[in-house]
Order: sequence, then structure tokens, then C-alpha cells
Amino acid sequence: MIMYLNGQFLPREQALIPVEDRGFIFGDGIYEGVRAVGTKMFEWAWHADRMENGLKGLRINFNRAQIDALEAVCERLVQDNGLTDGEAFLYLEVSRGAAPRTHFFPPATVPPTVFVSASKLVVPRKMRDEGCSAVTFPDMRWKRRDWKTVNLLGNVLARQAAAEAGAYEAILHEDGIVTEGAATNVFAVIDGVLRTHPLGERILPGITRMVLMELIAEHKLPLREEPIPFAQLDGASEIFVCGSTTDVTPVVTLDGKPVAGGKPGPMTVALRDAFEARLYQAAGTAR
Amino acid sequence: MIMYLNGQFLPREQALIPVEDRGFIFGDGIYEGVRAVGTKMFEWAWHADRMENGLKGLRINFNRAQIDALEAVCERLVQDNGLTDGEAFLYLEVSRGAAPRTHFFPPATVPPTVFVSASKLVVPRKMRDEGCSAVTFPDMRWKRRDWKTVNLLGNVLARQAAAEAGAYEAILHEDGIVTEGAATNVFAVIDGVLRTHPLGERILPGITRMVLMELIAEHKLPLREEPIPFAQLDGASEIFVCGSTTDVTPVVTLDGKPVAGGKPGPMTVALRDAFEARLYQAAGTAR
Repeated sequence: MIMYLNGQFLPREQALIPVEDRGFIFGDGIYEGVRAVGTKMFEWAWHADRMENGLKGLRINFNRAQIDALEAVCERLVQDNGLTDGEAFLYLEVSRGAAPRTHFFPPATVPPTVFVSASKLVVPRKMRDEGCSAVTFPDMRWKRRDWKTVNLLGNVLARQAAAEAGAYEAILHEDGIVTEGAATNVFAVIDGVLRTHPLGERILPGITRMVLMELIAEHKLPLREEPIPFAQLDGASEIFVCGSTTDVTPVVTLDGKPVAGGKPGPMTVALRDAFEARLYQAAGTAR
Repeated sequence: MIMYLNGQFLPREQALIPVEDRGFIFGDGIYEGVRAVGTKMFEWAWHADRMENGLKGLRINFNRAQIDALEAVCERLVQDNGLTDGEAFLYLEVSRGAAPRTHFFPPATVPPTVFVSASKLVVPRKMRDEGCSAVTFPDMRWKRRDWKTVNLLGNVLARQAAAEAGAYEAILHEDGIVTEGAATNVFAVIDGVLRTHPLGERILPGITRMVLMELIAEHKLPLREEPIPFAQLDGASEIFVCGSTTDVTPVVTLDGKPVAGGKPGPMTVALRDAFEARLYQAAGTAR
């Protein structure tokens, strides 16, 4: 596997960083996960917007032009790793760089660490068609979930708990409301209306979520962009999770109990199919 | 500078880790900061207890015997880096190791990454004698502050804000109470009684704090181990912060305004001096 690190294309074994990198010492970095269909990055501009916003939030010196230059890096990694045939997942991370440990930002002369890798993406089709199971889990994360930082222990522990319960995803809640999934955004249908947590510091502005917002408007589906009360989640008539490695995946089992009839609901199916159409249309390919 | 990484003693330039280390990708690691006086680690057992608790919390496979074996590594680093003469700060980190990125824990065959470094410690004597300034800042951290993880962005941003305001430390608050400092625990004297946040998930169990609890009992000082209401902080008659790189340091200016008379208060001074005596006594040296 060929990776990109600080201007160089290297085999995995040679992609090494100083142990004093602030990513390793403080989780002091911003990342992105971008999906490629063929060699084309899906919704690159939105991913770049989000990355720019996070880097500005943390005040890491890596500007929009530098972010946008990584699109060609991603394309080359898809090529060099022989991933042009199907879909790929591009992981990008920019940390504040390596410096002797102190909380305070290092001098501006310390360059950020820039890392990109590509791997084969397989969104499990059976799960997308028939639905997945999820568990609920407390949201333990820090307060700026809108910045896609690598302070991810709350996500790691939630997702691990899901896996150990035989589930695909953990749906997070705090203060009596559903925030999002450990690696996805969450939608539910309550009283016939689609509901999802509004944007803000409490959730990640998912790119798939943004696409869905357009599709919901196009399809004139009823929507309230309001928090889902945690107590109402198990009475929802539909639940789905969405994200760049998940597409739109129905949740048909929650904490071991079937959601509604245990089958994907009609709005979920409509959005899943509309999203898929948009994905392959954007890539200029048919599935 | 000689560092320890995964069983080897190496010069800093050679202390490299795979970019896919979970410390870099998820902040998935536990650290410690230990103080050495001469070649002796101060309160090693308490640091080891805390590290063990954090590693168990995150379920990283690194046991107590492995932690305790790092004491000799620390001693050697103090020697090899010529730090035996004064004081040193030992930084220890154990991450979940390097593996292709996925939230789920990697197989048990992936070894943790183990890193130790030593640097000269200089607790600013003038500040310890005359006091420091602090600012207040929202506590943005995740919910398990009792585990000393490297998910430290909330601390980094708070401490940077303090530095930019010309202050030494940021005192964190949430939900109307004072939790702790960005790199210290916080005590205040309110109505003549010492007050500090009780142990639990909301604060780090500081080693200096633990020593102080013994000294407070020894000196029969009045104590309530209860949260300090944020609204009462600026009416406190004394405030101090404490930690392994801070000792007991009086806060004499808060958000630009003098605390009480702008001078270290009597309980603060008593504890600062008692702590210092214990520190050098433990090391078997006189200052």
C-alpha cells in the first residue's frame, strides 16, 4: 500500500512520524474521510469546507488551497493502489506537527503533519438493503463535535460496544436527546415526520446528511430538524444511519428489539435509493 | 536527547512510529507525567495506579507489571540525558498500537506502543513564591477525565487561551461549577474552608492533589471536598492550582482581577511549604 506523508508517496512501512507528533501526544489534528467512486472524489468541496472549518477552529496553519491540493493526492493514491475499479475510502489527516511536548501551540515554523491513505471501500450491500442493528450508548465526547478532530475515544468506545453486542452502530445520547451515531448521523421518523439533530457544536455536519437534506427537499418529505428525544427513539416508525462508509442504512433492530416491523421503512428506502442514484450519477458511472 | 520507544533507547531523530498508530488516528492512548527529583520518581506507585486504571478503562493490553517495569526506564532516561542534577519530567504514553484504521479494537496480536521521554523540569520559583495569574475557560473535554488519555484538545485550547491572555493557567468550569485547571487541580478557600472538586469521572485524580489531601489532614486544615460554584470563585479568599509541573502555585490574579489581596493566602502558603518539604524529603535530598 502506498501512502502520502508530508509531500512524499511512500510504502506503508516507510510512512513514519516522530513520536512527538502532536497528533500522538494530544490528538491535536483534523481528519476527513472521503469516498471515491472510480477515481472521482464524491462531494470534495463539502469535505474541504468541513476540513477548513475544523483546521480554523483549532488554528492549525493549513489553508484552503493546501486542502484542495490534496484532491489530486487522493486521485493518485486511488490509482497507485489499484483502486480505480470499485470504490475507495480516502483518509486525510492534518495534525499540528511534531514538537517537544507542551500544551501551548508550537512556533509557526513547525509545519503540520499531512497524511493521506486510500483503501478499498465496501459498503455492505446486504445491510444497506435489509437493515442493520444498533445499540444505544452514552455520548461521552467533547463539546466540539462539529470539528472533525482525532479526539475520538468517545466514538471508539461506543463503536466497540456496538461490535461486542453484535451490532453495526452505536446511537449516542446525552441529556435525554439523541445526538448522532458513533460514525454516522441518525434520522428517525416520529409521528410520520423525519427528525434529525440540527447542525451545531453537538454533532458532526455529515456530508451524506447534507446530500440527504437536498434529497428530502426534492422529494418533499416531511422534516423537522430537531433533536430526537431519547425516550421516543424506541417508538420511532423508522430509524436510519448515514455516512460516507455507510450510505443510508436502515436500523431494523435497536438494543435487540425490532424497530417498527423489523423491516426498512418507506422513507428510509426512498432516501437510500435516491442517495445511491445521486452517488453513481455524480461519479458518471452506473452501478 | 535519548528516548525510549518499544523496548529501545534511541536518539530523538530515530524515535519514529507508524503514522497509522492509534494514538495519532484516534488519540487512543493513556499517558502519565512523573516528576523525578535526582534519579528518584516521586510517588511512582500512585502514578502507576492511575495509569493502570486508565489502561483498564480503555482496555489496552498493558498490565501493572509492564507499567512498573517502566520505572527503571525512567531512571535510565534521567541518567542518559544528564538530568540527575536537578529535577526532571518523565512523560510516559501507551497507545493501542498501529493498525489499519477502524474504530474497532485491533486483534490482540497488535502490541501497544510504549513511549517514555525525559526533560529538565523547572517549576518557576518566582511564580510558586509570589503567585500566578489564571483565566477562566469553559470545560470542553470528554466525560472521562479520570482516565489520563491523550484526547487533550480541550486542555490544549484552554491552556493556549490562558497563554494568549498572559496567564499561566486556565481554570475550567461547566454547568456552573469549577472542575479543575487545564493541567492542574484547583483549590479555593470559601468562607474560611478549603474546597476542591471531589474525585470521580469529572476530574483527573492529581497526584499532587492526593499528597495535599494527606497534608491537609495532617495540618488539620478545614476542607470540604465539594465542587466550587463558579459564581463563588471570584469571591474566594484564596485560590491555588497544583500538579506535577506546578507544585502548589497560588493564583493571585483571576481574569485580570486580583484574588483577595493579590497575595498568596495563609492556607496556600502553608500547603505549598509542606508540599515542598515532602517532595525533597521523599527524594532524600535538601533543596
